[in-house]
Amino acid sequence: MIVVMQPGATPEQIRDVEERIRQFGFDIHPIYGVERTVIAAVGAPELDRNEAKEQLESLPYVEQVTLVLKPYKFVSKKFREQTVVRVGGVEVGGTHFAVMAGPCTVENEEQLFKTAQAVQQAGAHILRGGAYKPSTSPYSFHGLGREGLELLARARELTGMPIITEVMDPRNVELVCQYADILQIGTRNMQNYDLLREVGQARKPVMLKRGMWATYEEWLQAAEYIWLGGNEQIILCERGIRTFETYTRNTLDINAVPAIKELSHLPIVVDPSHGTGRASLVPAATLAALAAGADGVIVEVHPTPARALKDGAQSLTLEAFRDLMRSLRPLAEVMGRQL
Amino acid sequence: MIVVMQPGATPEQIRDVEERIRQFGFDIHPIYGVERTVIAAVGAPELDRNEAKEQLESLPYVEQVTLVLKPYKFVSKKFREQTVVRVGGVEVGGTHFAVMAGPCTVENEEQLFKTAQAVQQAGAHILRGGAYKPSTSPYSFHGLGREGLELLARARELTGMPIITEVMDPRNVELVCQYADILQIGTRNMQNYDLLREVGQARKPVMLKRGMWATYEEWLQAAEYIWLGGNEQIILCERGIRTFETYTRNTLDINAVPAIKELSHLPIVVDPSHGTGRASLVPAATLAALAAGADGVIVEVHPTPARALKDGAQSLTLEAFRDLMRSLRPLAEVMGRQL
Amino acid sequence: MIVVMQPGATPEQIRDVEERIRQFGFDIHPIYGVERTVIAAVGAPELDRNEAKEQLESLPYVEQVTLVLKPYKFVSKKFREQTVVRVGGVEVGGTHFAVMAGPCTVENEEQLFKTAQAVQQAGAHILRGGAYKPSTSPYSFHGLGREGLELLARARELTGMPIITEVMDPRNVELVCQYADILQIGTRNMQNYDLLREVGQARKPVMLKRGMWATYEEWLQAAEYIWLGGNEQIILCERGIRTFETYTRNTLDINAVPAIKELSHLPIVVDPSHGTGRASLVPAATLAALAAGADGVIVEVHPTPARALKDGAQSLTLEAFRDLMRSLRPLAEVMGRQL
Amino acid sequence: MIVVMQPGATPEQIRDVEERIRQFGFDIHPIYGVERTVIAAVGAPELDRNEAKEQLESLPYVEQVTLVLKPYKFVSKKFREQTVVRVGGVEVGGTHFAVMAGPCTVENEEQLFKTAQAVQQAGAHILRGGAYKPSTSPYSFHGLGREGLELLARARELTGMPIITEVMDPRNVELVCQYADILQIGTRNMQNYDLLREVGQARKPVMLKRGMWATYEEWLQAAEYIWLGGNEQIILCERGIRTFETYTRNTLDINAVPAIKELSHLPIVVDPSHGTGRASLVPAATLAALAAGADGVIVEVHPTPARALKDGAQSLTLEAFRDLMRSLRPLAEVMGRQL
Repeated sequence: MIVVMQPGATPEQIRDVEERIRQFGFDIHPIYGVERTVIAAVGAPELDRNEAKEQLESLPYVEQVTLVLKPYKFVSKKFREQTVVRVGGVEVGGTHFAVMAGPCTVENEEQLFKTAQAVQQAGAHILRGGAYKPSTSPYSFHGLGREGLELLARARELTGMPIITEVMDPRNVELVCQYADILQIGTRNMQNYDLLREVGQARKPVMLKRGMWATYEEWLQAAEYIWLGGNEQIILCERGIRTFETYTRNTLDINAVPAIKELSHLPIVVDPSHGTGRASLVPAATLAALAAGADGVIVEVHPTPARALKDGAQSLTLEAFRDLMRSLRPLAEVMGRQL
Repeated sequence: MIVVMQPGATPEQIRDVEERIRQFGFDIHPIYGVERTVIAAVGAPELDRNEAKEQLESLPYVEQVTLVLKPYKFVSKKFREQTVVRVGGVEVGGTHFAVMAGPCTVENEEQLFKTAQAVQQAGAHILRGGAYKPSTSPYSFHGLGREGLELLARARELTGMPIITEVMDPRNVELVCQYADILQIGTRNMQNYDLLREVGQARKPVMLKRGMWATYEEWLQAAEYIWLGGNEQIILCERGIRTFETYTRNTLDINAVPAIKELSHLPIVVDPSHGTGRASLVPAATLAALAAGADGVIVEVHPTPARALKDGAQSLTLEAFRDLMRSLRPLAEVMGRQL
Repeated sequence: MIVVMQPGATPEQIRDVEERIRQFGFDIHPIYGVERTVIAAVGAPELDRNEAKEQLESLPYVEQVTLVLKPYKFVSKKFREQTVVRVGGVEVGGTHFAVMAGPCTVENEEQLFKTAQAVQQAGAHILRGGAYKPSTSPYSFHGLGREGLELLARARELTGMPIITEVMDPRNVELVCQYADILQIGTRNMQNYDLLREVGQARKPVMLKRGMWATYEEWLQAAEYIWLGGNEQIILCERGIRTFETYTRNTLDINAVPAIKELSHLPIVVDPSHGTGRASLVPAATLAALAAGADGVIVEVHPTPARALKDGAQSLTLEAFRDLMRSLRPLAEVMGRQL
Repeated sequence: MIVVMQPGATPEQIRDVEERIRQFGFDIHPIYGVERTVIAAVGAPELDRNEAKEQLESLPYVEQVTLVLKPYKFVSKKFREQTVVRVGGVEVGGTHFAVMAGPCTVENEEQLFKTAQAVQQAGAHILRGGAYKPSTSPYSFHGLGREGLELLARARELTGMPIITEVMDPRNVELVCQYADILQIGTRNMQNYDLLREVGQARKPVMLKRGMWATYEEWLQAAEYIWLGGNEQIILCERGIRTFETYTRNTLDINAVPAIKELSHLPIVVDPSHGTGRASLVPAATLAALAAGADGVIVEVHPTPARALKDGAQSLTLEAFRDLMRSLRPLAEVMGRQL
């Protein structure tokens, strides 16, 4: 922690700050410059002393406090080199490129099974589908709930594909765990800490979507919540952030892929469907994700997007998904990834 | 709903779209222009047909679909002129300017009671204080929980001020309702729909903070969730949005005050503490909120910010809060507000 | 400048960084912590050594470089307490609250003169009007050019009000100086450095609008460009920044007012017309600007907004402007400002 | 153009709007719905009637005006299928993948020539280098000016590679044209309309970088300015936009690549150096650009980034650039691109 004093800070004020820093358990290294005094505080973990920065900055004679260490530990690249999450026969985070595909929302048996079989035949590894759906509008469809979970379980039996589905309410974590192979935390819930703690105690892998407003640092801190609950099977998912651009639903932050790879050992996948919001842009965004080093993608597919109950505009048809898988294959080979 | 066809759409494609629009229950009014065909769809509520836009946009021969009506109904200005929320003797949304003040987090009896008495003497109407605290870092203090609620209840007895406190977990709504006079939904939970539904069934007023990523429209849709649960006592709170500016913690969107006033009948208050993140900017932001027409403010105050467990940098000292109240008074008079 | 080494940096790497820092003219103060080494570099002006941060960060064994000092000097609060810009009998930056008003664009004599006389009678101090207009669309009206300048000069004769008008092209600075009392640099040109240098050499005050993408720091650096050219008569203008909110044209950053006041001695005015983009929101935003401590406002007024060649939606009618001035007066008095 | 009236608009108000629409040259198609009246305006080019939307929205009885047509014409996909810009033997916009590489800034002969030869040997097609540099800080190096242009011309002789360099000041366009093969318009100047008009009259291709705040629509409108000047040789360059994320200098908007491809016939290249701001992220971003369908990249390379006068942190070393070219080759082949 580096504390920069205001110019003109008095010796008493400097002593006061030094004393406070010592009370937080740090050793102090003051540097008395010409224009101002800088105090380096070392020798104690910053992680458990988050209030230190805020408190020191509340003093009128302190200009600025900079933290030196990252605000997360266990999900950091410095803690571990690589995490591989294994689900069924699928690996996320190793040399595989994991393709999760399926409808935004489970609507009925026919829609789900038809999609499941088609995406499997096309080469997808994991089936996605929402039973509990967050909807901006209270008037929208909110999913079939438990019935949707049961349909997903039957689709898994039918195809052998593991399933990933969203959980929104901490009271449902236990129930969803009975059905799902991977629990998905949606973008709106990235900082729903009670939910993070609850899935931290689950014995199922968790895919944590980035909050559409969240920095990499905040995202990794959210992952640290899950880790501290005891669950180390975490997959990160970049799904686009909110910017001023309105042609696309979100701005897919492709930088996140290599950035997370240098900051963390956790696998990262990309959601090109929400990341673009337009089916016509999904193939290019998927190829880009693979080329940028992502460990997989999660793609919305619907047999008839023009009849979908949600996210029709960004869902691929079965044919478009097949074409996409075909164009992914040679790229995966070049990138050294098993598809 | 206005559907713009791609240029070159064939008669069959136009008929297909017309047929779909009719199935959603709309009457169609096609306009065959030179460059493209536009189809106006009227005569049915758009509100219950959210999927229509998405589905139509998934068709390759549709260029763009624009909704004409607002995606919320009951919280709209068109539904009602004005809502006044009454808590204890305090009115939010009428001619009063409601001042909520207190510590970010309830730390202990001494800190809370001292702050409560000081803000009351300075003229605050409602006591704020967190018992359950959302923290970006899992290593931060997360509040005293039930013990914090009990301290808040005792501070209410001591001062007579109603209390507002945050609820984060749907499982805690019932408990928090036993203590709080107003339930606060924090920015991170603005789209936590299970929580919104739960407080929608509570018999206590709810203050809904704007998600730091949320548009006015999404914010009002979140309020509509609460309304549809049966709870019409809703206060909106502008607390700053996330932008590229880093000098301030958030960018306080002062436009939100008059904008919400023209879109909705719900009262709106401003949080200048989170809206700026710097105690030195809080007074100016508070005055601006009053001048812009806000129905109140919620301000963080701490006896010793440099010892606060959270948000020290943005908390006012007791003295600074007294000064702020003094400068608010003549302004309130000019603005026709009772303080 | 504080240089944080990567954990595991070798003694040679640390020596290399120390050597480089010394070559930039800094004294070094290394702090050998447990997890990493931190090197404080002091004793030299950071201002002239901008490349140091970039260069050091390019080294793989450097984790992070933090600058301690602000990247501007002469426009800083530390250089001077207060600047008052005087134009005609009007002061900007003292205890006056300067109201600049007029049409977005000078369209013709009748429109300009009618507006000029009306805003003057209502109490405005400075006449605004565009002769050269930046337009997002190449098909829009781009202003009358020199003819517009001449009309402005005649409006000044007629009313006695000084005039402010935009200059976009460095080749026009000399010409515009012959007519204008204040040169306006628009948001799109905040980082048009050749233009900044040119107006830096002008003998007329300059109003520098904030780039809609620019941080306070970048804005003040742009002002420093003008200052270094020799022109100290600079007014800053907050006009809204670009965010994800679409209901308003821009998000007026009211925090900028007190923030700039603590960072700089330059006066700051607010543009509520562009800051909101909606005439209905302009009055509230104007009052908020005054309450937040701004030194003035610049407001678009048009005799018939529904016939305006530009910015009709955000222009006040003559009546609405009169009403606004009336509501400003008591507020100005309370705030200790002469209107 | 679709005009939605406020609910409760009177017949007179509706007639007034209809009359105004007719005066703009449109035919009207009113639709009298239950909740409100909608008026479709067709039969005239919206492009030349930009003020119509603004003016109509200034009326209190109009709720919303939506434009149906795109605000640009000649750069639109609907005007032409594909533009290929040819420079020397290099094609941008066809099946080639054009690699532009070189130093951020021309510093001296040795630095430039060494870099030029190295990037050429590694397979780059076009040499980049700045003679006039926009710098946020007035204290930074601003380039060698004409001397830099001469060095670039000599590097072209030496290597045979065409050169691209930035022009910032309309007064320099003629001079820069004497040296450069492609004129670069930087992000800060995307809406510097006098500069756009000037390069519109140049006989050299122009690479137009996206403003860091600009939507696709505004970017294409800026390109339309150049086109209208008579210059059809335009290359677009996505270089990252400004968001809340601070780990990266900008957020590279990879969606822009396929989006621009469906909106416009102009070629689009990607700048992974500014798009990330970190040399460690540049290779992944470059591969992603190719996979997403970009027509090329422009990459900063420096023999010793830790001695660079600008942008050291985002410049690749000569070795890193060679490695990048090696990893691009198999990918280009798979994507059907000549490298």
